[in-house]
This record gives sequence, C-alpha cells and structure tokens, in this order.
Amino acid sequence: MQRILSTQLPEHVGAIVRVAGWIHRRRLLKSVAFLILRDAAGTTQVVVTEPAARAALEGLPEETVVEITGTVVANPAAPAGVELTDPRVRPLGDPAVPSPFDLFRPELAATLPTQLDHAPVALRHPRRSAALRISAAATAGFRTTLDRARFTEIHTPKVVGSATESGSNVFTLDWFGRPAYLAQSPQLYKQLMVGVFERVYEVGPVFRAEPHDTARHLAQYTSLDAELGFVADHRDVMAVLRDTLAGMLATVDERAGAACATLGVEPPAVPAEIPAVHFTEALKIAGAPADEPDLAPAHERAVAEWARREHGCDFVFVTGYPMAKRPFYTHPDPERPAYSNGFDLLFRGVELVTGGQRLHQHADYLAALAARGEPVQPYAGYLAGFAHGLPPHGGFAIGLERFVARLVGAANVREVTAFPRDLHRLTP
Amino acid sequence: MQRILSTQLPEHVGAIVRVAGWIHRRRLLKSVAFLILRDAAGTTQVVVTEPAARAALEGLPEETVVEITGTVVANPAAPAGVELTDPRVRPLGDPAVPSPFDLFRPELAATLPTQLDHAPVALRHPRRSAALRISAAATAGFRTTLDRARFTEIHTPKVVGSATESGSNVFTLDWFGRPAYLAQSPQLYKQLMVGVFERVYEVGPVFRAEPHDTARHLAQYTSLDAELGFVADHRDVMAVLRDTLAGMLATVDERAGAACATLGVEPPAVPAEIPAVHFTEALKIAGAPADEPDLAPAHERAVAEWARREHGCDFVFVTGYPMAKRPFYTHPDPERPAYSNGFDLLFRGVELVTGGQRLHQHADYLAALAARGEPVQPYAGYLAGFAHGLPPHGGFAIGLERFVARLVGAANVREVTAFPRDLHRLTP
Repeated sequence: MQRILSTQLPEHVGAIVRVAGWIHRRRLLKSVAFLILRDAAGTTQVVVTEPAARAALEGLPEETVVEITGTVVANPAAPAGVELTDPRVRPLGDPAVPSPFDLFRPELAATLPTQLDHAPVALRHPRRSAALRISAAATAGFRTTLDRARFTEIHTPKVVGSATESGSNVFTLDWFGRPAYLAQSPQLYKQLMVGVFERVYEVGPVFRAEPHDTARHLAQYTSLDAELGFVADHRDVMAVLRDTLAGMLATVDERAGAACATLGVEPPAVPAEIPAVHFTEALKIAGAPADEPDLAPAHERAVAEWARREHGCDFVFVTGYPMAKRPFYTHPDPERPAYSNGFDLLFRGVELVTGGQRLHQHADYLAALAARGEPVQPYAGYLAGFAHGLPPHGGFAIGLERFVARLVGAANVREVTAFPRDLHRLTP
Repeated sequence: MQRILSTQLPEHVGAIVRVAGWIHRRRLLKSVAFLILRDAAGTTQVVVTEPAARAALEGLPEETVVEITGTVVANPAAPAGVELTDPRVRPLGDPAVPSPFDLFRPELAATLPTQLDHAPVALRHPRRSAALRISAAATAGFRTTLDRARFTEIHTPKVVGSATESGSNVFTLDWFGRPAYLAQSPQLYKQLMVGVFERVYEVGPVFRAEPHDTARHLAQYTSLDAELGFVADHRDVMAVLRDTLAGMLATVDERAGAACATLGVEPPAVPAEIPAVHFTEALKIAGAPADEPDLAPAHERAVAEWARREHGCDFVFVTGYPMAKRPFYTHPDPERPAYSNGFDLLFRGVELVTGGQRLHQHADYLAALAARGEPVQPYAGYLAGFAHGLPPHGGFAIGLERFVARLVGAANVREVTAFPRDLHRLTP
C-alpha cells in the first residue's frame, strides 16, 4: 500500500491507508491513546483503543519515526475533519530520544540559543520549518522572475586571492599554503558576467567576518544577487528589483501558503511603483541635519513610517546616497556628483536591499581607486573586464535571511536560518 | 526607441530599430565596413557605407560596447537572413582594449590556461558562454524536477567546526581566532534536514583541497545535492535520480537549445529505467579480478561501453559497492553486509553521481564510527538528529561542472567553469 500524506486523508474517508512520520504528540490515557503524527505536509490524529496497541505506545516517545496503517474516519472535532482509527503502528527505527523542548506547543518555549544548539530537532517545530519554507519559496520566486526577464544564473568563486571590496571583515584561509579569502559578495564577478550574458543572477553564500553580535548580522548568509547591463541609470535597476520582489512575494503566497498561515503572515502587496525619496529628502523626513553622511537606523524607521503613512507602502527606496559612503564601483549622479546613483530599499523600516548603477569605464575605475588610495594590482583581473568593454550596468543584492525575518516578523535573523554561523557559533 | 535583441530583427524588416552590444567582429574594407554586433541573444550583421560612419569605426576596436540605430533589411546571405543598414553607431563607453585572442573565430585559439587567465573576455566566446548557459539550464531543471516531487530547497553552512567526513582534503580557515573548515559537502546537513522536510535539495559550492592537478578536479565546484526520507532502500533514491537527470536534460533542451546548437550537443535520452549492475557484476564485465575493492577508471569505461552496447544507454548505475570503500554513513545491503546500498552513476564512462541509502539509526552510527576508529565528539550535533528520530533515507550528489563537461564533450571541467579554483589558480 502506497504511503499517503496527512493532507490527503480527507480524500480517503472510509478507506484503510498508510501514513508515516514522526510522533509529534502522544497522549496516553487510561484506555485510549491519541497520537498526532507529523509528516512533511502536516499532522494526522490517530486514535488507539486496542489495549495491546495502546500498551506498545508506551515504548515510543515523541519524535520516534513510525508508519501507521489505519482506517480514515470523519470526525469534525479532529484537525482537518478526519482521524485514523484501528491503527497498526510500526516503528521505522529505534525509539527516539525525546526533544529537550516540546515540539507540539504552538510556540517553542526554549530560548533562541537553546533552539540553535538543538537545531536538528528545533527546526522540526512547525513555526521554525514554516519560516524555512517561506525562504525556499522566496528564493524560487527570485529565480523565476529573473529567468523570465532573460537573466542567466551564474556560479562564482567563494574563495578569492585578494581581500578586495572592503579590507576588513574578511575570513582568511590557507589555500594550498597561500593566503586566500572568503568572498564577501559576488559583486566583482557578477559585473564581469554582464559582459557575457548582459543579465545575470546568483543565489549563494557570502561571508562577513562581522565582529558584531546583533540580531541582524550573520557571518554567512544567503545573498540573492542580480546585475544587468544596458541600463540608462539606477532607475532601470530599481524597476527590475520591484518586479523581483513582487515575484518573490507572489511565489511565497502560491507555494508557501500553509507556512504563511502557520505564522499568520500575509505577504504585502508591492505597488507598481515603489515610492522613492532622494537621500537629501530622506534626511528632511527624518528630521536629521542636512550634513548627515548616512541614514541611522532611527532615520530609516522614520522614512519607512513616512512611506507607510503617505503611500500605504511597506517598501520605500532611498536614492542618491552620498558617494563618500558607497563602494568604489558606485556610479555618481551625473547632475550632482557628490551623490550617487546608488539606492537602498527599506522594508518595514529595515534596509533590505542595496543596489545601484556601477561605474562601467575602465578609466573611471582607475580614478575611483586612486581617489581612495587603493592599489590597482589586487583588482587586476576585475579591471580587465572593463578594459575589454562593459556596458552601463547596475544591480542589487537581497539578504535572504533578513528578508524572511522581516516578512515573518522574526526579531532575529537566526530564527529563520537553519544553522546560523556567527561570532560565537560554528555548530551544529 | 526601445532596444531590441538580435534575434528579434527578422520581425522588423523595413523598420528602423535600435540594437546594442559588443563589436564582435569589425571588417574595414576600402569603402564599406562590416560589423558583427554581439548581444546576449546572438549576433547582427551591420553594413556601414556612409564614409564618415565608416571612418569613425577605425577608433572602435572589437569588444567596444555600442548602440546602433539602423534599418533592418532582408539579406538571405546574412546570418538570420537580415542585416542593418544606414547605421548610426554610438559608443556606450571608451574604445575597448581588444581581446588577446579573436572571439569571432569558431574556436578560441588560445590555450586553456590563457583563456582562464583572461576569463572576463574569454567567457564571451560563444562556445564558452554556451556551456555556461547549458549549466544554468541543467541547474534549473534539477530544481524544477525536485520542486514538483515535493522537495524543499535548503541552504546549509559552508564553514564547519570539525573536519568530518574525510579528515584530509579540507581547507582550514581562521574563524574569529578559532580554526574552522570549508564544508566538503552538505551531506550531514541535508540528512538532518530530512528530519524537517522529508525531502530536500541544495545547490551550492563545495570545497575540496584536492592536491591533484587533473582535468576532472576543482577545489571549488557546484554540487547538486538531494536527500529523501521514507525510502525502502537505495532503489527509491535511484528512481528519483533518474527523474532528476531526465528533468535536467529536458530543461537543457528547452532553455538552452541555441547553446546546444552552438556546441553541436544533443542531450541524450534517459530511459524510463537506467540499467543497473551490481559491483560484482561490473568487475566481471570489466574483466577485473573478483577481489578488486573499487572500480578503476578503465573499469568504469568498460561498464559504460557495456551499457551502450547492451542497452543503448549513456547512463549506467553500479550498485552495491563494497562497504569498505564507502563513507561511514553508508547503509549496508542487509542481504550481503560486506556490500553497500550505495551506488554510482556513470555517464559516458565517467562517474557523475554518487549516492545511496544512509544509515538512519543512532546506534548504527555509533557502531560505524567505532568500527572506523573515529571519535564521536566531532559529530555530536549531527548524531543528535539521529537520536531524535530520522526515517530510512538516502540521497545523491551531482557534480555540476562534471555533468556539463561530459554533456558538451569538454576534455577539462575548467572549460565549463566561469572562474575555476584549483591547486594553482585563485584568480581572476
């Protein structure tokens, strides 16, 4: 008999079926036992009345993996309106060591560090797994949207020979006796690949040796990177980002509807045009001095509140950040060269995406590096791409964990990361 | 005027259009010039007769990025049957430094090391980019097939606290002052995630400190990993792998048809059931002694020839490899415990996929590690997952670059890798 999933039971009322999964909850009463069986799709209530079967359950703690054959009976009081009766329960392995915290309660009662220490079992909690399902759906939506817009997926090196981009915050490793570095982003490679495919994206790990122990930072996170050529300026990039976010949220809705329901999440609408304010305007909205070089978190929240109030929108672009605060490859605003064609996208008050138009002329790169007092040699392979001709281009990077955390209302990115890595954590 | 792509020109005969791209080839004759413009979709022939326009081309070497407005004229002798005439050519940047090798010739004449040194420009050659397009399509097919089969995508740590799996061949890094290691595979994590989602996959970089300088080995490659629970044995895993390969090749055909044509590649058919031979049979087919503990490359080729001859198939499974040669998490064949429920898939004579059923009982892991004299402590976080209940499961890993190399007939995996990393190469 073919195994079916918990969600398929209502189609089989009256029939004998086989299900399998983990004992999510076991309630042993005097003459009856109730099992909640958890599988990838959901849960099944199983009623055990036969005395020998009930007795056998005493040796099967929660999280034991079992296969159950039984009769599907309609019961309006049971979850999904059906339950299994007259079950034959067959363990598929040894009795489990029970979880150090109850997985069947609506919320995990353990502290986050305890959950992370016991990730292999904590992630089985429906709220933890729901966030990861949303993450998977968002990633699928990112790719589907960009595939439709003629982007090509690329894979770039995660180990590089020079600590470029920003000298600090890189992890050093031993590469066959030579020093090498973990890539902080695919930035330089995705720009080069614009020369090959015009439009590219990559989903992959990036590494930041962040000495900060905050709720927003991870030392490894998943970056959703895109880069596109033949743009007029950063606004073409913002339009693609808008469509990408809309595609991500639509896919979350389509593919992870049950996970959203578990978490009480409703993916927000993305307007046809996301409101955008120039950096100088953003400072005014936030009541900050006009000579502030960057937006502080409180300023970002003020701008987000403004977007919510004036445009009814969870998203807002801030454009034209001062050049001084942006990376060397940033394209200046031709009209106001102290400001950039770079932007951030704030989502519910937090910076979620950074992007912009990049320099595309070899001579401009040489000048930009010289102006920062940076040597050219570590960038040699990268600069060659510009010498050989690259079109005006730009792109963006979305931090997946930050996006999901903000979407589901998690206070800490670690709640939506399977096995986080940070200053203190290298296991499990 | 909206830019159109080279492939859209035939729809616009008689109209004035705008195209953009790289000067792929420039032929300056006395009173006329021919440009071949390359964009992401293909190439466009441009005929320049106006004297001033022709003269201006002298300052625009190959690889210069230009935008061209011109009239689409049918010309059966031109590629795709159309060409642009009366063009206005506008450079989108400074004149390019020409490539050190001609990109317009059917084959790149430079040696592979020279191509790799100049990857940002070498990858623009239609044959090099075609291989990467096939790679992207294969990856998309991997995900689509598994998404349809209820797999969930995961992202796992690429930095780990213990050098598990195989003690040698790991890269060591400095993690905030502590030693850490680049992950050789997501093996242990994908098994743990079977406890969360039953069926999972990951596409990501893996790292092998391979001291071998061969045409088959990279120090970073892209691994297509899948793992599934509630299997009867390895044959359930092989069935999923068969469907996954079929999905990958179908997607290559659908999405990368032009790239296949460029390379003269025809994706092979995957039969409903891929032929499988037991290891002991494979030794006989290869004429090897019955006590050989593993298949040598020559044996693999012999088995592949047998599959081609007897079954007309480019693929063949070898099952039941001796336990002694498989990793500690391998499930033995219950009938013949010296042999495993592990398999390799050979594709055109080369091992492409390794997979099998895994142990799923905590006690079996303790015994397996003890039998190998391995300590338990480095595996603590991993073993916890088994203590808390995991179903019978198995999985496989496909090396993306090896798959593409074999598919397109590349002699070296570096030909189908954008920026390879190996013993000698850390740049560009």
